[in-house]
Amino acid sequence: MAMARRLKLIVAYDGSQFAGWQSQSHGNTIQDHLERGFGRITGTPARVHGAGRTDAGVHALAQCAHVDLSGKPLPPARWVEALNALLPPAIRVLRCGYVSNNFHARLSAKRKIYRYRIWSGPVLPPFEYRRAWHIARPLDLKVMKAAAKHFVGTHDFAGFAANRGKAENSTIRTIYSVRIRQKAACITVDFYGDGFLYKMVRLIVGALVKCALGKMRTEDVVARLESGQLGPARFAAPAEGLFLIRVRY
Amino acid sequence: MAMARRLKLIVAYDGSQFAGWQSQSHGNTIQDHLERGFGRITGTPARVHGAGRTDAGVHALAQCAHVDLSGKPLPPARWVEALNALLPPAIRVLRCGYVSNNFHARLSAKRKIYRYRIWSGPVLPPFEYRRAWHIARPLDLKVMKAAAKHFVGTHDFAGFAANRGKAENSTIRTIYSVRIRQKAACITVDFYGDGFLYKMVRLIVGALVKCALGKMRTEDVVARLESGQLGPARFAAPAEGLFLIRVRY
Repeated sequence: MAMARRLKLIVAYDGSQFAGWQSQSHGNTIQDHLERGFGRITGTPARVHGAGRTDAGVHALAQCAHVDLSGKPLPPARWVEALNALLPPAIRVLRCGYVSNNFHARLSAKRKIYRYRIWSGPVLPPFEYRRAWHIARPLDLKVMKAAAKHFVGTHDFAGFAANRGKAENSTIRTIYSVRIRQKAACITVDFYGDGFLYKMVRLIVGALVKCALGKMRTEDVVARLESGQLGPARFAAPAEGLFLIRVRY
Repeated sequence: MAMARRLKLIVAYDGSQFAGWQSQSHGNTIQDHLERGFGRITGTPARVHGAGRTDAGVHALAQCAHVDLSGKPLPPARWVEALNALLPPAIRVLRCGYVSNNFHARLSAKRKIYRYRIWSGPVLPPFEYRRAWHIARPLDLKVMKAAAKHFVGTHDFAGFAANRGKAENSTIRTIYSVRIRQKAACITVDFYGDGFLYKMVRLIVGALVKCALGKMRTEDVVARLESGQLGPARFAAPAEGLFLIRVRY
């Protein structure tokens, strides 16, 4: 009998149609769709491990996952073809390859890049629907950029996490950079870090936008970050604007 | 009583959810949605005239339309707000303004720009689903560009129209330019012309792709164009890749 071989997958998805990454009883998650795909191809149940559990509505340009496969090892390109033939078009396996059994999609991840997209204009174009947060009121980008700088570095991000302490051993994370750019009506906020707590990116973007709308003072955001405390009026930016861009190992 | 005033609308839509522009009994067309919106706001039936009737699945970045409104004239920005509040998010009124009663969205149109999008790669990303024609086999762009040049100019396009003679008085049209560009896997074909016959852009793209795949000779495409005759094996590119980009007056 052949040894189990570990396959690494790069997966893109339009999250608007799914209940997030992590498996649920109703079966309409990215993980469920992938596991069903492997199950139908191999005839045996498979467990797919993702680099991160994206929430319902959150998208991915390149989520990473691994799966252990026994049985006859197919060439990677055949896996891509066979899985995409079974998956809904809103989930695509972009590429895959066999890796060492030491590789673990979540535990081996060293860097993650998330992008948050904001559409800043009176009308949200139809092609941006469910792919950006529509904010009709004008945003002060200078204020937003200044506030974002405070998040760079190693911090206890407990003040910007949901369900803190529940799933994570530590709430200390390092953000290497936050890059904010505007091109016409589209504002992108790119987060480059060693890992992110549950809802951390959306809670930070929520605070940045409150600052940019003049509804919150940067000092209060900084105070919350430094306190490591849960604040009273936290606000998470909606899932539809969030994209997992890349996982680095 | 106030005179009827003519309102010009610029409308964008993701065509994948609708049965095209033109009104149908089931009511799920762009025209139907707009007319219902006006009807609900004004309390009287309205007839919306579009610059062109896009097919089911065809998109628009800036379709143009007009409507005659009696009753109290709302400011244009209020129409945008009121209509978008009623329309599905896949149809958006981008802007509108009052125009002279001599203006007619279809009859006054002088130039139209259509874009056809092709995704040339092994896997169609989820965000391109229903927004591009996915062609996994490699395309010879040089051949495609050379074949496209033959369509520029004033021709009888009967050989590249469906239902010819039915809706049109003449099958003579002028194409000012066909511009083909590739950026990574995405190929765009932009058509700039004084007007287009029914399915003309999709039939031309179908022929260009057949040439680029080595399945048709450029000479045969040219012969069909020059003959003005319906060919036996015509092939229209799918609707999902087609975008009405702009109408000029």
